[in-house]
Amino acid sequence: MTSTPPETVAEPTDEIANDRPWEALVEKIDADDNAGAAELLAELSVEDQRLAMAHLPTDSQAKLIETLPPEAAAEVLEALPEVQAVEVLELLPSESAADIIEMLPGSIGSDFLREMDEEDSEAVLAELDDPDEADKLRTRADYEWDTAGGLMRARLASFQETATVGDVLAELGENAETYADMDVQYVYVTGDQGILRGVLRLRDLVLTPRPTPVSRVMIADPISVHVGDNFESLRKLFDEKNYIGLPVVEDGGVLVGVITRQAVREATSEHRTEDYLHAQGILGGEELRSMPMAARCGRRLAWLGPNIVLNLVAASVIAMYEDTLQAVIALAVFLPIVSDMSGCSGNQAVAVSIRELTLGVIRPTEFLRIVWKEGILGIVNGFVLGLLLGTIAALWKGNVYLGLVVGGALCLNTILSVLLGGMVPLFLKRLKVDPALASGPILTTCTDMCGFFLVLNLASVVLAKLV
Amino acid sequence: MTSTPPETVAEPTDEIANDRPWEALVEKIDADDNAGAAELLAELSVEDQRLAMAHLPTDSQAKLIETLPPEAAAEVLEALPEVQAVEVLELLPSESAADIIEMLPGSIGSDFLREMDEEDSEAVLAELDDPDEADKLRTRADYEWDTAGGLMRARLASFQETATVGDVLAELGENAETYADMDVQYVYVTGDQGILRGVLRLRDLVLTPRPTPVSRVMIADPISVHVGDNFESLRKLFDEKNYIGLPVVEDGGVLVGVITRQAVREATSEHRTEDYLHAQGILGGEELRSMPMAARCGRRLAWLGPNIVLNLVAASVIAMYEDTLQAVIALAVFLPIVSDMSGCSGNQAVAVSIRELTLGVIRPTEFLRIVWKEGILGIVNGFVLGLLLGTIAALWKGNVYLGLVVGGALCLNTILSVLLGGMVPLFLKRLKVDPALASGPILTTCTDMCGFFLVLNLASVVLAKLV
Repeated sequence: MTSTPPETVAEPTDEIANDRPWEALVEKIDADDNAGAAELLAELSVEDQRLAMAHLPTDSQAKLIETLPPEAAAEVLEALPEVQAVEVLELLPSESAADIIEMLPGSIGSDFLREMDEEDSEAVLAELDDPDEADKLRTRADYEWDTAGGLMRARLASFQETATVGDVLAELGENAETYADMDVQYVYVTGDQGILRGVLRLRDLVLTPRPTPVSRVMIADPISVHVGDNFESLRKLFDEKNYIGLPVVEDGGVLVGVITRQAVREATSEHRTEDYLHAQGILGGEELRSMPMAARCGRRLAWLGPNIVLNLVAASVIAMYEDTLQAVIALAVFLPIVSDMSGCSGNQAVAVSIRELTLGVIRPTEFLRIVWKEGILGIVNGFVLGLLLGTIAALWKGNVYLGLVVGGALCLNTILSVLLGGMVPLFLKRLKVDPALASGPILTTCTDMCGFFLVLNLASVVLAKLV
Repeated sequence: MTSTPPETVAEPTDEIANDRPWEALVEKIDADDNAGAAELLAELSVEDQRLAMAHLPTDSQAKLIETLPPEAAAEVLEALPEVQAVEVLELLPSESAADIIEMLPGSIGSDFLREMDEEDSEAVLAELDDPDEADKLRTRADYEWDTAGGLMRARLASFQETATVGDVLAELGENAETYADMDVQYVYVTGDQGILRGVLRLRDLVLTPRPTPVSRVMIADPISVHVGDNFESLRKLFDEKNYIGLPVVEDGGVLVGVITRQAVREATSEHRTEDYLHAQGILGGEELRSMPMAARCGRRLAWLGPNIVLNLVAASVIAMYEDTLQAVIALAVFLPIVSDMSGCSGNQAVAVSIRELTLGVIRPTEFLRIVWKEGILGIVNGFVLGLLLGTIAALWKGNVYLGLVVGGALCLNTILSVLLGGMVPLFLKRLKVDPALASGPILTTCTDMCGFFLVLNLASVVLAKLV
């Protein structure tokens, strides 16, 4: 609702829009008409800009952005997924990138610089016109993205403790436009060398006689966080207390920024997205299909490579029982079923454990609770699934023992995999390894091995009854 | 920063806290000392309350909550995961539940009522002291949680258009405490029958002479959303424009609430969590281990049951090639490796497609783009993985043809599964089916079938060279 002209809400465009906005762009680019393409791009809606850019190779994106005036370029980059904007910036000459960074809000500029190669970002910082601004950006880009320093906004309204309420209101009024950009919720009071002294609420200012010194109205010695505070502690703090925003200080209590509840929530959301991508085998940086093919192949292989080794280890169990399998070839049909189904059961337990850790309703030490809660569930579900698969196997070959072997193996392996699936995330959490990333492969390898072993070993025990 | 006494930030408690707060509670409950237990609970920190409650069976949780005074009970319920709070409320006598609902902020109360069984929630609403309040809660609980009506806050500061700036400031000042709870960012102006007319910014109020009518300062005909607007359209709106909050109107333009950017972001985050859980096979409601065992087993089986059928379909391919397998038993070792590895490759493509759909950089109609972008990647990764596995197979048995069969099958199946994995989410999105929920099973079944078929069929073609 910031400075809105009369306007009506756009209809939800659930249906596909009428054309492919990138096709005209591609034509212009193919005809080497970058100026024409840039003009076209600038006219598109934000949504279409994002779509159009995603359909161009990264170097064409960079060419287009370089052709646009810096302000328009900054707007387009803001609309893109961060990972894409960063790739474009890395391809630009450092002067052009610097011109664009100057047009971006500081927090977004430092987010981009943080994700760029160090060499590229240093080159860009060197080109910035204002060395103070460059220093600020460099400092912020040096913090991890999910710490208070990385998540804070550096622009804020602060006043010396010697000011009066009237001074503050006059200043806010005179520079209303500057402050409008900042979404002012609180005004901060600082002492010598910018050390944080207090916080003023806009409401309190309005209701106080103008000559009162701000030090009389402010909340003194306010709670603050340190630039280095990590995401977990910030999330806890905002969870426990109903703050909208908190001041961020450096060593010595110097006020350097504000962190909002919203920024912490966004970071939570980012972490969850990362969990999902990691669980699905996308790591080493988020992938978009506009990225260069070599990088996409390489990053996916980085996950698949170790996985093939784990798969080989698991399958080696089958190689040890070739004779049993040769004797009862029907077992080969059930090997992948038993291992897949137990894998699914185990993954459910992994998801519940990761969720419970996130919600803070379990501690990473509570293995006994998992044994108890997943154990009973594993017995019930293992029995149900084992009975189902065992019956099918027995009916198919008309052999009760085949049913017992297959059903028994699935039952036992289900119990084992839910226990393991429930415990692995807790274990990884204690080791400070990302549970979403590593739980899947560890679980799958173990349940595959055990599944193969159980089917083939039980079969070898009653081999005479099976052939 | 709302009304903070001087305070310092708690140390991040990365290490495990010193005791298990629920053990003392369990002792008291076992000794039937609910009053003592409730007293203990009320003394715990929010974090420990959440942990302690999660370690009690749902009926003990309900007994404890019933023993607490309604205000304290409301505080504890607010600290719990929503799904857990709802289960507890359903177990309480409706008068007790109503007393607690009255103590909760309206938006949280209606969230809880929405998730309760209809019979239970109606019983609670009938017990509320204030029938107007009950009507409001009922109306809000009727909206889907992820629409404007479900996400809005109903409490807001609104004034008639005939008021002056002085009236508004005086009212805000006199009732500062009431408004403090509401996190006032904007003040709304309404006409006859509560129809939205305009929006006032606090800043503009402060800087305007007091006798000015609000209609002169307000932003007239402001943008607003309808209670029924769905999540996708809300997210687009907040993505495109830099609004902090928007007024929500019913049919006829009557102002009924405010929706904040933060609420939309939280909903985005909820949807992502749901994606993650669905992808891991947790559906039919979020699971916590404090829930009754029967519900937990049943919900997990609801996912595993259909899955076992799909697994049987896929494995039936093996049954058709029993002779080939009998002749070359070594193939049995590679069947699960080929199907697992292709499944992993396909899941990576699924994750990228879901992510691209979420980011709005691909449209659900662009199958050709997937063919192109995943096709090339599939050829490269398929070749690399096929060469690796084929070499291992050839060396293991000293038979080049075995290597060609296994490697060729993995290569072809990888190409197929990344194509399929990339396209299935787009296809499901067009059918308005949740891609995170259904992509996995569809993909796995297809890649299993094709993997088994490719290994065994290629083997049967060169069978003479393999034995």
